[in-house]
Amino acid sequence: MNLLVVGTVAFDAIETPFGKTDKIIGGAATYICLSSSFFTNKLNLVSVVGEDFPKETIKMLQNKSVNTSGLQIKKGEKTFFWSGKYHNDMNSRDTLDTQLNVLENFNPIVPIELKDSEFLMLGNLMPSIQKKVLDQMTKRPKLIVLDTMNYWMDHFIEDLKESLKEVDVLTINDEEARQLAQEHSLVKAAKIILSMGPKCLIIKKGEHGALLFNNDEIFFAPALPLEDVFDPTGAGDSFAGGFIGYLAKTNDISFQNMKRAVIHGSAMASFCVEKFGTQRLTEISQEDIDARINEFTNLVKF
Amino acid sequence: MNLLVVGTVAFDAIETPFGKTDKIIGGAATYICLSSSFFTNKLNLVSVVGEDFPKETIKMLQNKSVNTSGLQIKKGEKTFFWSGKYHNDMNSRDTLDTQLNVLENFNPIVPIELKDSEFLMLGNLMPSIQKKVLDQMTKRPKLIVLDTMNYWMDHFIEDLKESLKEVDVLTINDEEARQLAQEHSLVKAAKIILSMGPKCLIIKKGEHGALLFNNDEIFFAPALPLEDVFDPTGAGDSFAGGFIGYLAKTNDISFQNMKRAVIHGSAMASFCVEKFGTQRLTEISQEDIDARINEFTNLVKF
Repeated sequence: MNLLVVGTVAFDAIETPFGKTDKIIGGAATYICLSSSFFTNKLNLVSVVGEDFPKETIKMLQNKSVNTSGLQIKKGEKTFFWSGKYHNDMNSRDTLDTQLNVLENFNPIVPIELKDSEFLMLGNLMPSIQKKVLDQMTKRPKLIVLDTMNYWMDHFIEDLKESLKEVDVLTINDEEARQLAQEHSLVKAAKIILSMGPKCLIIKKGEHGALLFNNDEIFFAPALPLEDVFDPTGAGDSFAGGFIGYLAKTNDISFQNMKRAVIHGSAMASFCVEKFGTQRLTEISQEDIDARINEFTNLVKF
Repeated sequence: MNLLVVGTVAFDAIETPFGKTDKIIGGAATYICLSSSFFTNKLNLVSVVGEDFPKETIKMLQNKSVNTSGLQIKKGEKTFFWSGKYHNDMNSRDTLDTQLNVLENFNPIVPIELKDSEFLMLGNLMPSIQKKVLDQMTKRPKLIVLDTMNYWMDHFIEDLKESLKEVDVLTINDEEARQLAQEHSLVKAAKIILSMGPKCLIIKKGEHGALLFNNDEIFFAPALPLEDVFDPTGAGDSFAGGFIGYLAKTNDISFQNMKRAVIHGSAMASFCVEKFGTQRLTEISQEDIDARINEFTNLVKF
């Protein structure tokens, strides 16, 4: 099934207790595509970069079967840049610099042949931009997954609530769930959020795993206990990519299959954090993924 | 198999965002015994209370097949009292008052017929008192489980390390594991702690579940997502009681069976937090426990 991924392709500069990078490749859609590419080769990207973005990286994505016909390259402009520093516990970070650049006036254009994509992943972006993509679809996708963050809840909550009415699965972290629902209990917060529109909610709890809610059921996926979390950047996007990639591959959006998709997403996130940036996602093999899924299975089996 | 439980029997006064209690029954050994009593009737308590401790509570424990011959009742003295207030997130609390009373000079005496107990649960107590119990055993128990807390690590770390050399399973929370190992990564911390003596380590993460480590394997048990955590007091002790109670009942201390024991412990903890103090543990039935074990099974099945 065709999977359409919309989100940022960017430069990041990251500092963690383990080290520091110069400008490296980042962006939600980059992580999502790399992660999804292990599950489907009908993968299509809608995003924007500046003239400064390396051709080799676009080539690398294409080599992973990512169709980049929806990737706008803005002449004379610069790519979105984010820089951040993680605290010692790796659960929190400070943003050191944000340069929107091409993102400031990003007008996403879905190529005509992708307007009927069956699977749509709206990566973390300004809600009004996510909405513009929804409005361009000529056929209601079989599954729409939306990722967002606290910043949009702080400043564009009404736009976000509009989009939420149209999506199937929302992925946010625990603090964002509490903020969106204005409720501390995650179980109660999930009920409130599901009443806003999404059929399913995934609450990502980082090292504490992820919860998948629908109206009647809860599923819990653990995080793999790792010796070191080297760099958490992109873990949530890698999760989303594995999740929707697995669903697109299997073309089964039942709750039972979503559970398996959450485990696959968790596996992809567990790889992502092992090295800086996207590096680990470009190294691993299908065998590595299979072995890790096995580890997840054994971790909770009793 | 005979299960010997050593720990405090106490009065608590608790304040949570949901309400406030006067003096109610508390104490690590009380929770452990109530929880274990669902799994074994060869249950024996070694503890101390003052003359002010209600006879009905001792009677209630006896009705739950707890042998109280090792419970010292100190004439003219008062029972240990603790008072605390939980913060809004329920993950942290302030101690408002601690009155050691009978605990100040507690000299645990293991009745002669219990000195060869097969299962020994050393509830959270001053390490030197836990050690005194170990020294009275005439036969090495089949399984020794020790629970402790940060306070003893702050003030009596050498005594604690002495006891750790002799125990099979240590149960502590995540922050305590980090403190004991002087290492932030829980996976690395577990390795360090296992090198101190225990064959197994259980790291309790409250609402985030529990991890069971031995040298080669990790098992993860989720916490049940609850609408409300009403009062976390005694959750760790209820966990320990369910854990060792299940092992004593099945008389199987293999790692495979310990996984099941962790799930049973988690189930007992999930009941404990539903009402103030020990109340919920005195209400539930075997059917309630079976149903909850089922919920845990379904929560992670994919």
